[in-house]
Amino acid sequence: MTHETTPILGTAQQANPRRRQLLLVAAGLLHIVAPVLLFATVFSWRDAAPVEFQLPALNVDVTPTNLLTQCDEKFFTQTLDHFDVGAPTYQQRYFVCDKHYKPGGVMFFYVGNEADVELYLNHTGLMWENAEEFGAMLVFAEHRYFGKSVPFGKDVMKHMKYLSTEQALADFAVLITYLKNEWKRDIPVIGFGGSYGGMLGSWFRMKYPHIIDGVVAGSAPILSFLGDEVPLDKGSFERIVTFDASEEAGSAPNCVPNIRRTWTAMKNLGKTKHGRKQLKKTLSLCDSVKVESEKDVDVVMEWAKSAFDYMGMGNYPYPSSYIMNGVSVLPAFPVRVACSYVAADFAADDDVGLLSAFSESLGVYYNSTKDQECYELNASSDESAVDSDFWDYIFCSEIYQPQSVDGVNDMFWPVPWNFTADNENCKSEWGIEIRPLWAVTQYGGRKALRAASNIVFSNGNYDPWSGTGVLQNFSDSVVALSVEGGAHHLDLMFSNKLDTPSVLAVREAEKQHMHKWVREFYERKAAIANE
Amino acid sequence: MTHETTPILGTAQQANPRRRQLLLVAAGLLHIVAPVLLFATVFSWRDAAPVEFQLPALNVDVTPTNLLTQCDEKFFTQTLDHFDVGAPTYQQRYFVCDKHYKPGGVMFFYVGNEADVELYLNHTGLMWENAEEFGAMLVFAEHRYFGKSVPFGKDVMKHMKYLSTEQALADFAVLITYLKNEWKRDIPVIGFGGSYGGMLGSWFRMKYPHIIDGVVAGSAPILSFLGDEVPLDKGSFERIVTFDASEEAGSAPNCVPNIRRTWTAMKNLGKTKHGRKQLKKTLSLCDSVKVESEKDVDVVMEWAKSAFDYMGMGNYPYPSSYIMNGVSVLPAFPVRVACSYVAADFAADDDVGLLSAFSESLGVYYNSTKDQECYELNASSDESAVDSDFWDYIFCSEIYQPQSVDGVNDMFWPVPWNFTADNENCKSEWGIEIRPLWAVTQYGGRKALRAASNIVFSNGNYDPWSGTGVLQNFSDSVVALSVEGGAHHLDLMFSNKLDTPSVLAVREAEKQHMHKWVREFYERKAAIANE
Repeated sequence: MTHETTPILGTAQQANPRRRQLLLVAAGLLHIVAPVLLFATVFSWRDAAPVEFQLPALNVDVTPTNLLTQCDEKFFTQTLDHFDVGAPTYQQRYFVCDKHYKPGGVMFFYVGNEADVELYLNHTGLMWENAEEFGAMLVFAEHRYFGKSVPFGKDVMKHMKYLSTEQALADFAVLITYLKNEWKRDIPVIGFGGSYGGMLGSWFRMKYPHIIDGVVAGSAPILSFLGDEVPLDKGSFERIVTFDASEEAGSAPNCVPNIRRTWTAMKNLGKTKHGRKQLKKTLSLCDSVKVESEKDVDVVMEWAKSAFDYMGMGNYPYPSSYIMNGVSVLPAFPVRVACSYVAADFAADDDVGLLSAFSESLGVYYNSTKDQECYELNASSDESAVDSDFWDYIFCSEIYQPQSVDGVNDMFWPVPWNFTADNENCKSEWGIEIRPLWAVTQYGGRKALRAASNIVFSNGNYDPWSGTGVLQNFSDSVVALSVEGGAHHLDLMFSNKLDTPSVLAVREAEKQHMHKWVREFYERKAAIANE
Repeated sequence: MTHETTPILGTAQQANPRRRQLLLVAAGLLHIVAPVLLFATVFSWRDAAPVEFQLPALNVDVTPTNLLTQCDEKFFTQTLDHFDVGAPTYQQRYFVCDKHYKPGGVMFFYVGNEADVELYLNHTGLMWENAEEFGAMLVFAEHRYFGKSVPFGKDVMKHMKYLSTEQALADFAVLITYLKNEWKRDIPVIGFGGSYGGMLGSWFRMKYPHIIDGVVAGSAPILSFLGDEVPLDKGSFERIVTFDASEEAGSAPNCVPNIRRTWTAMKNLGKTKHGRKQLKKTLSLCDSVKVESEKDVDVVMEWAKSAFDYMGMGNYPYPSSYIMNGVSVLPAFPVRVACSYVAADFAADDDVGLLSAFSESLGVYYNSTKDQECYELNASSDESAVDSDFWDYIFCSEIYQPQSVDGVNDMFWPVPWNFTADNENCKSEWGIEIRPLWAVTQYGGRKALRAASNIVFSNGNYDPWSGTGVLQNFSDSVVALSVEGGAHHLDLMFSNKLDTPSVLAVREAEKQHMHKWVREFYERKAAIANE
């Protein structure tokens, strides 16, 4: 792992900057595209090779060892279209880690989402750390079109139609059915998934309760769609990023007003050639960065905002490499650290002083390695850009999540929801018309959750995605667990000495639910045997 | 309606005799194919034009009037592949019959199955007769590839891949979502379906509980698949046909042993040229029927058996045209009538006397019009043959129902289950390999039913399909209702003076469940409004 592969604007942060800038300029979609790409890129990084590290000493969330060595890599022939038996097939990759399995045990099944499944294998501590107690065989199933489960090889982009949530769920159902027969293990199956994987996991339980006995869904923004029985809260993402920067979340009291002021300051400087030059210098942008028009300033603002979006998701209580693709480490509570640089009172005529301090804030994220002398805004293209594209396809074709920014309840600038622009973007990129009601038509929102069972939703109040997560119980068995002070699916990670009491309690509650699902399975099995 | 369209072996009885005979000869699939085609053909007849009739006088189940005049025929543009947004579209037909709707009412939604939806519109009395009490708008949705909802026009057979249960269910989900928005009616939706429509209806509730609030599933053989948690009872269909012919079901005590003896008698006669000639004459087969080999005799036996299969399904307590495609009328309890002809003791050497009497039995079904002088075994091809083909495609591609006949627990000859032969048949017909576990993988069998809610399964013990229906409650809201003395989804039909107390009680119980689902919906709606 060298820094040559780690530009200042690394692959984790900006998976597909070309596309992003295009969108920013062409469609003005700052507000919508940002979280989408964020969402995609956080889960699409590559090269997450383990960093050798002394966990107890530094309490950094990096993979303590390469867990792949404890698993067998396998491939399974799947029908690309489960609803058309004559369709072509592809090879779905999965890992089986069987060291802890005991008869009478369980299958822990990672419901793969939009990245190489090795990432989830190496980071889902909740599965590894409970394996022995449950006598669990661990299975990590890769999502079609990601990692090594890409159909059609280099021609994949010509065959995007097989990339859908329904096909991915059917893959999992067929794979589990096969595994139980192949291993001759009639055992309960417990699903785990984070973020999009958490949505997939809960939908999997809702649609296939006979295949999966219960699901732990970490930070699943499953209520982020149009057409549900109550109106969608479209502004929650940036509102929660802003919460992370507030005094209530431990940040400096001046942080939110100061950051809000930076946008006006940048806009004002952006109006003149001289001002843009000053802006570039004050923010420590590299010479190569083009800041020659007001539109270029928009791109800079979006780039700056992204830092806070990511730091919000990665606002963990200990230093963590998770948001940084394992390449570098964010400090504990990075938003607090970033805010500490803009904690002062800046005079009304000291925009330059404010922006200079803001540049330091951005460095928490964009110069986490502390060895960059200036900021680049673009990154080299790599595999994660492809993952990001594929995520974008799913977003356009099935799970369109509208967002808005109002600049009042959040610390950014107002960008109202614009369906037309979003739709034009999907059309130009994929030739796809967004079906705004599809996700709720297919997966159901709140009403379907009331009909469901055996799903644990966990959300941290520091996680920007938690605003469209499940925060209240729907029933005794579809429950919401709150990780006070937790960021993006903190509970799924490996244990850390700096874990808060809240995340420990949530993990314990998750374990109790898992035990209950296992009991239900074996009690039913005994009852059938006695019939 | 003239008899020119009603050959002795009419379209209802033998939708695709060419294919059937081919199968009989080529693959020896008597046992499997028969019920499958039965299943298909019963639900695929056409020309079900109303017969003018005085219901009170004769108590015949024919459509009392053409109910189409009370409905608007409409078409809706559906994506052919809901899981691939870029797929082509087709026009799905549906009817809205809005006369009885009242604000605060409900949508009764017929979950269309494998025939022109006009058939179900004209026969589903349970929907019509409850419409006023529930203030219900009636919607009858046609299943893709049937009736007027056929994509690609004459080229449809080149595009079979879009015919699947999952796509059909998604059609219904999208259509209902559209209707509720278009009509601005936020109302509960209650589904109705019979036979395959009952399976689809229950799967619809299981997969889309947010779209459909409850389902009445009449005679749905939803447990007829491999891979469930208890072994499949493959022999139940012919066992129940045999039960219908037994003393316990009101038939003559000698019927079962006599019918069992006919097969041996036919086989024996079939061994010689002289015997075959005698067989042909004794059974009153027309001159044009070819009985020149033992294989030809097999075809005759299968044809004879079919009569009992159909009469078993149509073993209603009053004269009914339902099984006869509305073209002619079967007597009340047709199996009893057929059995009455073979009620005597036939001497051990009187096979000819037995077969001559058996010929009269067959006439209950094959000469229901009482104007035929001999039996033909083939029918002219018509549209229903296409429906039958499409049903066969679904059977091969998704919902493979293995069957067997043992000749011990039933009154026929042993034909063990033969997966290889079934699979070869599907391969040669459609190029499809059967996925024997698919139906249970996708829809889940008993375990999924335990996780479901708000489904009423009704089954009559005279219905051969009831053996693989839901006969025991799975929970308080997934319940089994038994129609004592009822044949194929009797409870869904229009009321009749000869209805048994049992079917009246079942209809009343169904109504109570429907009221409960409506209450649940409006209580929840009020709770949301008050939140």
